Amino acid sequence: MNIAILFGGSSFEHEISIVSAITMKKVFKKSTLTYIFVSPDREFYLIDTDKINSKLFSSGEYKKSKLLTLKKGGFFADGMFGSKAVDFDVALNLIHGRDGEDGKISSLMEFFTIPFISPRMEASALSYNKLYTKFLAESLGVKTVAYEKLSKNDERKISMDYPVIIKPVRLGSSIGVSIVKEASELEYALDVAFEFDTDVIVEPFLEGVKEFNQAGTYTKEWELSIVEEPQKEEFLDFEKKYMDFSRDSQVLAADITEEIRGKIQESFKKIYDPLFKGSIIRCDFFVVEGEVLLNEINPIPGSMANYLFEDFEEMVNRLVASLPKEQNIAIDYQYIHSIQNAKGKA
Amino acid sequence: MNIAILFGGSSFEHEISIVSAITMKKVFKKSTLTYIFVSPDREFYLIDTDKINSKLFSSGEYKKSKLLTLKKGGFFADGMFGSKAVDFDVALNLIHGRDGEDGKISSLMEFFTIPFISPRMEASALSYNKLYTKFLAESLGVKTVAYEKLSKNDERKISMDYPVIIKPVRLGSSIGVSIVKEASELEYALDVAFEFDTDVIVEPFLEGVKEFNQAGTYTKEWELSIVEEPQKEEFLDFEKKYMDFSRDSQVLAADITEEIRGKIQESFKKIYDPLFKGSIIRCDFFVVEGEVLLNEINPIPGSMANYLFEDFEEMVNRLVASLPKEQNIAIDYQYIHSIQNAKGKA
Repeated sequence: MNIAILFGGSSFEHEISIVSAITMKKVFKKSTLTYIFVSPDREFYLIDTDKINSKLFSSGEYKKSKLLTLKKGGFFADGMFGSKAVDFDVALNLIHGRDGEDGKISSLMEFFTIPFISPRMEASALSYNKLYTKFLAESLGVKTVAYEKLSKNDERKISMDYPVIIKPVRLGSSIGVSIVKEASELEYALDVAFEFDTDVIVEPFLEGVKEFNQAGTYTKEWELSIVEEPQKEEFLDFEKKYMDFSRDSQVLAADITEEIRGKIQESFKKIYDPLFKGSIIRCDFFVVEGEVLLNEINPIPGSMANYLFEDFEEMVNRLVASLPKEQNIAIDYQYIHSIQNAKGKA
Repeated sequence: MNIAILFGGSSFEHEISIVSAITMKKVFKKSTLTYIFVSPDREFYLIDTDKINSKLFSSGEYKKSKLLTLKKGGFFADGMFGSKAVDFDVALNLIHGRDGEDGKISSLMEFFTIPFISPRMEASALSYNKLYTKFLAESLGVKTVAYEKLSKNDERKISMDYPVIIKPVRLGSSIGVSIVKEASELEYALDVAFEFDTDVIVEPFLEGVKEFNQAGTYTKEWELSIVEEPQKEEFLDFEKKYMDFSRDSQVLAADITEEIRGKIQESFKKIYDPLFKGSIIRCDFFVVEGEVLLNEINPIPGSMANYLFEDFEEMVNRLVASLPKEQNIAIDYQYIHSIQNAKGKA
């Protein structure tokens, strides 16, 4: 299998996408990897798999790589003998944040008929926006944390008790997120969040709440990961992110009851099926007094949450064999023929 | 102003998009029109504005037109002296149904930095799906008709009283829609709807209900159209569609009270702002016992609902001057530098 890793993008999470992408070299042991970089100004570059490292991007040296054009059926490089398609079997969308998680890359892949692993457009639009994630969860009978929504021009007033957590609705990786302990801190936290987005959601900050992560996909059957209780140690911000996005070795399953595990899995399946078919996602849950609440959906999780699966690479192979097919629409111009006949023009 | 009309697309509504596009020639009297056709297999063709007519497409003759490649900043044609950008100021997305209304064209325009008139991705994903439209309206305090949702594999049972109307969740132009008068007809109507979509919504069929259409946009201020009460005469299916998508002369305002008109406009504004900025949409409302209910959002209305505006062309000019700007994201590789420093590699 030859997998094209799409990474980078015009996103606040551009750099951690690079970390995720490089991590894939350790994760895919049998497959061939083809790296396609989406630069900050959204050009496509074919990056040499042997030479990939973070400095290639931070130094700007990537600009010497081959520039690609996206056309029907694939990415093309201009060469001496005309335009040639880059060879791969499937594209893996590994762009975190804007472009990758908002549905743009999925739109591009679908429009240009390239097989790809990623949430499709609708799933992206709903999960990229934390407010719409709430609508979705509610409609599927999956409980979430209580919330209020504030837009940039709204009066800066909340009715919830402190402490609260403020999150821009459209970002991942904790960017622009603040914990607000009392009213006097609200103004500043909103300033920060509104730097990144026009809308924020406010949720109660549940101190000491247990958090559990469940990743999974659907191939010919459910393939759910172990449930992990993520560690909340005190790292520097960039170290923590680096750890999250460069993980490549399997972790231990959380010590939870069968009942809680069952509830987490049931909620995951409700969210995933059928909207997220074709993707590998991670859902983060809170458990409060025996009740499972969806915290968020990670449509493109850091390093694809590979560390939660027993054999991630084999699972990807099975997923590639069962990607959703776009509905075929036959266009026969019968309708235009009818008008022409009715008008006596044909 | 030079306006590129994007039309066609891989959509059940491909042919009526052609009708909408040709109608634009009568609507834009001062502007230059540049026609870019998206063929059923999603190639881009530059169509000669002087020669455009429906037969060009039904005969397949369009294939002799110049093939275009979408790249950063525009559509490019290969010529003797290299690749040359097609000249225009703004793209007008006139693709009805899949590709145009689902967010793909918006994704493409946004990704490749082309100024465009159309609902943006999020707005498209929410309004293309009638179920998500319900979520959106509810969250904004806009009332809608009661509904039930059925998926392809669900038990074929509804709890609503007959008559009901069955609609595929993701299609426009009445495709796959049936009115079901009694239980014995349900099975067939669902078969029809599930031909087109995996999910349907069921609503009570409100016999003799008054329907009103409101179109509009936001430029530097609200620009709302007159409210129309669409005629429900008995045409053949294709004639009716043709009439709807080829309209180019202004119609009379519906005879309604100021109060109802005010309620319709208020609901329109709630739906439009800020999600639909950059687009001209039409919302269809029912009025039941003095109450205004959103029936549906037409993100790319037939012939852009031009016939509802006093001076559509001037309004488009004002809209082009106030299109939403994409947030600028500066990527400085500070994060990767920090990791490199922390690892002692830099």
